[in-house]
Amino acid sequence: MIERISRKQFLSGAARYLTTAAAGSAAWSLLSKEPAISGPVAPSWPWPYARLDMEEARRLGHDGYYEYGCGYAGFAGIVKALQDKAGAPFTGVPLQMMSFGSGGLKGWGTICGALNGASAAISLVSDTKTAGLLIDELTNWYTQALLPGDIGNRIAENRGYAVDKGIKALPRNRSGSPLCHISVTKWCAASRYAVDSPERLERCARVSGDVAAQAVKLLNDQSLGTFRAEHTPPKSVAECMSCHGAGHAEKNVSTKMECVKCHHDVHKK
Amino acid sequence: MIERISRKQFLSGAARYLTTAAAGSAAWSLLSKEPAISGPVAPSWPWPYARLDMEEARRLGHDGYYEYGCGYAGFAGIVKALQDKAGAPFTGVPLQMMSFGSGGLKGWGTICGALNGASAAISLVSDTKTAGLLIDELTNWYTQALLPGDIGNRIAENRGYAVDKGIKALPRNRSGSPLCHISVTKWCAASRYAVDSPERLERCARVSGDVAAQAVKLLNDQSLGTFRAEHTPPKSVAECMSCHGAGHAEKNVSTKMECVKCHHDVHKK
Repeated sequence: MIERISRKQFLSGAARYLTTAAAGSAAWSLLSKEPAISGPVAPSWPWPYARLDMEEARRLGHDGYYEYGCGYAGFAGIVKALQDKAGAPFTGVPLQMMSFGSGGLKGWGTICGALNGASAAISLVSDTKTAGLLIDELTNWYTQALLPGDIGNRIAENRGYAVDKGIKALPRNRSGSPLCHISVTKWCAASRYAVDSPERLERCARVSGDVAAQAVKLLNDQSLGTFRAEHTPPKSVAECMSCHGAGHAEKNVSTKMECVKCHHDVHKK
Repeated sequence: MIERISRKQFLSGAARYLTTAAAGSAAWSLLSKEPAISGPVAPSWPWPYARLDMEEARRLGHDGYYEYGCGYAGFAGIVKALQDKAGAPFTGVPLQMMSFGSGGLKGWGTICGALNGASAAISLVSDTKTAGLLIDELTNWYTQALLPGDIGNRIAENRGYAVDKGIKALPRNRSGSPLCHISVTKWCAASRYAVDSPERLERCARVSGDVAAQAVKLLNDQSLGTFRAEHTPPKSVAECMSCHGAGHAEKNVSTKMECVKCHHDVHKK
């Protein structure tokens, strides 16, 4: 996808970017209120994906967690790799933009930040339909997989992360939910580690790496034309939505999360 | 959005860029590495915010919903306005990147997409601490405000949106939660509109506009030095976290969402 270019091509490309640079300067003088000098609009979306190495994404995701949290980590594990491999236009997107995802949106415990960041990366390089297929698969995998994954645990054992907290293989469990609050609380219950322990932080760092790596796997498969969804949604969703979903009798609910996680006792009262 | 520039302006801008580049920007140094085509690296994050018009954000957010859903709408309501006002570097970020947020992450019903997109925009122009303060306030406001807001309803009555579905003022309610699934389901229950009705879609379009506008209000206040958090978290959070939160006896839970929404019967069994 990205090819080496000649000096002539380079100079031609440079000329195209000069307007961006001029605009870069202009951006700093916002007080002038002159929007006039604008750089070229980014290439049309979705941007071209360059196949990446899963294990590089896993390491970038893990280590990125300790920079700006899980939202950044899930995004940077993929987009930093794209910046390193493909350069522009990816270098025009600040990776910290997704740092708000930490702790399920700045500690609110909503969507797992790693899923949020990785989904943004998927969305950057996929049309809406493809992004939907890949994000559905990634999220179903997340809720069903034993995390942190075995590979990430082994990398830690062999001291293979740039950020090395000296924490060995950690207990693994299935979150059953894409929500940070449920994922973290269930892991704390299963592992008996405190929510503010170094082990819990390291668990989320490894999960961030795992999510980035899994997203790269799906993007690579999609790029090769071999993507197939392998994780099916929980049965409760189809069952409950056959009445409550769009187009059905009740048609008052929209979700793909497992219903009975929270609604234990519906229709039993 | 992009204006033509004269040859003189172009050369002047180019000269500024080259100075910057020569001064050590990593922009072109990437060329010495692997795949060659690299544009300038984006300015250092966070990017400078230019104060925006709340009502412009509300319209962009509303209308954007019908392009790529609520995640796009919450983001574009702010970042498209910044692209229009300030040009680069904002023009280098494709707004559709946040379209994955629709329906709480591609229909999963997790974080409200409008909150997700608006939080990404806040995070683009704020350091992590400031983003935390603004996103906490935005999210507390979202859970407590009567939505869709009165202004958005009135814009619809006066046919002031570019996308006009001919739907008059809609019923309003408080979501009590930042989760799409809860927010949408509770509104369907309160309004008696179906989840797949044009009215529910229009409700989410108006809420998307409201969230973008509220985020712009907070960003403007922050820019003027007048920001103050006005919405306090639900009491249940402080009460429950006094045992379950980090640093306390149980220290096994991380969230800012209202606990008793889901945990009705804890400690009563």
